[in-house]
Amino acid sequence: MGVPFLRSRWVEAPDGVEDLDPAQLAPGFRASGVACGLKAGGATDVGIVACDAPEVRSAMALTANAAAAAPVRLCRDQTDAAGIRAVAVNSGNANASTGEQGMRDAEAMRDAAADALDLEPATVAVGETGVIGVQLDVEALLAGVRDAAGALSETGAADFTTAIMTTDRGPKQCALRAGGVTVSAQAKGAGMIEPGFATMLCFVQTDAVLEDPDAALRGALADSMERITVDGQMSTNDMVVLQASGGSGAPLPDGLLDAILLQLALEIVADGEGATRVGRVEAREARDPDEAERVARAIANSPLVKTALFGRDPNWGRIAQAAGMALAGEELQELGAQDIGTELGSDVPEAELSVALARGDSRAHVYFSDLTYDYVRINAEYTT
Amino acid sequence: MGVPFLRSRWVEAPDGVEDLDPAQLAPGFRASGVACGLKAGGATDVGIVACDAPEVRSAMALTANAAAAAPVRLCRDQTDAAGIRAVAVNSGNANASTGEQGMRDAEAMRDAAADALDLEPATVAVGETGVIGVQLDVEALLAGVRDAAGALSETGAADFTTAIMTTDRGPKQCALRAGGVTVSAQAKGAGMIEPGFATMLCFVQTDAVLEDPDAALRGALADSMERITVDGQMSTNDMVVLQASGGSGAPLPDGLLDAILLQLALEIVADGEGATRVGRVEAREARDPDEAERVARAIANSPLVKTALFGRDPNWGRIAQAAGMALAGEELQELGAQDIGTELGSDVPEAELSVALARGDSRAHVYFSDLTYDYVRINAEYTT
Repeated sequence: MGVPFLRSRWVEAPDGVEDLDPAQLAPGFRASGVACGLKAGGATDVGIVACDAPEVRSAMALTANAAAAAPVRLCRDQTDAAGIRAVAVNSGNANASTGEQGMRDAEAMRDAAADALDLEPATVAVGETGVIGVQLDVEALLAGVRDAAGALSETGAADFTTAIMTTDRGPKQCALRAGGVTVSAQAKGAGMIEPGFATMLCFVQTDAVLEDPDAALRGALADSMERITVDGQMSTNDMVVLQASGGSGAPLPDGLLDAILLQLALEIVADGEGATRVGRVEAREARDPDEAERVARAIANSPLVKTALFGRDPNWGRIAQAAGMALAGEELQELGAQDIGTELGSDVPEAELSVALARGDSRAHVYFSDLTYDYVRINAEYTT
Repeated sequence: MGVPFLRSRWVEAPDGVEDLDPAQLAPGFRASGVACGLKAGGATDVGIVACDAPEVRSAMALTANAAAAAPVRLCRDQTDAAGIRAVAVNSGNANASTGEQGMRDAEAMRDAAADALDLEPATVAVGETGVIGVQLDVEALLAGVRDAAGALSETGAADFTTAIMTTDRGPKQCALRAGGVTVSAQAKGAGMIEPGFATMLCFVQTDAVLEDPDAALRGALADSMERITVDGQMSTNDMVVLQASGGSGAPLPDGLLDAILLQLALEIVADGEGATRVGRVEAREARDPDEAERVARAIANSPLVKTALFGRDPNWGRIAQAAGMALAGEELQELGAQDIGTELGSDVPEAELSVALARGDSRAHVYFSDLTYDYVRINAEYTT
């Protein structure tokens, strides 16, 4: 398979992980991706992932954005998060800030998928991503959902991944086997990345037995999707769904879900709009974990630090400035070069930064992308 | 004088304001700017403003950044803010994150100015701006301070303004006459602009009688320097000093100080690194002023909104997303096009945006710059 999926220096891969073709789904799952006309040029833009097993156990996480999109509100209010059989997703339109019509459209999408798959509506989650504030072409979308339901296949994961991409440069997906179980996962995300818990779409399927999918998902998100930022912008449409069929009879190997979600999170950062590389900044010696996180996020979201990362400029003064801003009004021992780690050389795709605050014992880290000319180009010219 | 100084659509100029040559200082004040070698190429980099009247009344505001520079800490701890006779300022080095040596250098700078001007050290404020984390060439600076003290002139304001500039595209200064008093002001600022109260250097002199300079300054800052952002980055070195000699015997005309500080603040935003234009965003119908401010700042600091401003793209969905992020986890009536004002046409140098939250009666506004290719170029290539 060439390069292994779990390849970041920051990801701890469990022993014995085998890469499968990422088009493949975990046993008991099928997926598809088709084109229905929401994206220009006939690109694939609607997809479904479905579990054949009625005894599926699942967990779901949704954006905390107060201007959440219709599909997020629908899932929050009407979906049985612990028993999701299928997920229907479109790109090309986020169905956000679309009012009552948008909510009716999200319901119609959900109902069309439930009908075509012969499932209860409460067991179907819907996700949407793309432009905000534009009404859906709902007839085209419903036809697409029906097409996608008819196209489900055990090797349809790559089509599904393509169907959920927007400004992504490439697919973010894997199928891994370890400890007698298989996990497949598909994600998208490049902009509006600053998680309340996760800022993107991400779908994970496994035939492992999960006693508490919600705890497993929350735990893995806390160290992955919750730790990344591209532009500090919490999306209106984020959704993560974990589905476990239990078909293998075996549990998930320790650390596998965490490793997969962290690798996918890092791929989202690496694909941050216009990004040329990824940084990891750790704030150490903070008074408490909240303070450590506040400092790490201030550094990760500083456009001065992000342009320094792009410019390969080991500019530790900007790190001191951002840390001081995060602690505005508080006592802080003056930060000098000895308190700040920078590894910004041009041959490091994954750069490590740190700051020691000399205030306590807590630490926190955040992964972030650099700020480049292409970020400006993409966002000055693209309508989200 | 051509274009009047108080020219923004958002500035309410009092009646009868007359523009003077901005090289001129208010009566009773003198200023200078000389080169001492901190900036490359022999550029002017150290300057002094001094009041000849012992009965000067003054007020000072300093950055809240916890990693504040040595001159800021020195002014905070040792300067009599109400009785500042002179201000000595250098560019080319911020003397921030420079440890105990930096503090000794700031004291030496202050003492050299006090000596040369025959003033008590507590009546001399020092300001510095430029690169962070590099030790000063203090001997060069002290020689420069002495030169500047010898070069003071009633028409030295333009030289002083030049001496405090860093990445500024041009000088930000004025000399205005109204109601029998004169006010002169000099400011610098282009990057690291996100005030806790003020994020730049700004010096204001007047021969008006000010009963309460501190209240006058705080009030004017609240509606000017506190309302601007370029990159969301609170500086380590910000300082605003207001000095009033009282020599005219007349009070300041109502609104004049506010108008001057707002115009200077808008010039800082317009000169935001790489900026092509200025936006004003107002959050309306918030539950309380803090919430309104949080929403307005989230919109003003969103790189998606800032690139849309650059791209002349009336992309109201990004405004809804940023507002929803600021209110994450709270109930928010869905925002639609009718709730959001955008005026992003290509012929509007001062663009107005707004969002109505339908949560209450409070409002707040923030001025901000767009995010452009040149921002990335300046900050990837320049060492701050």
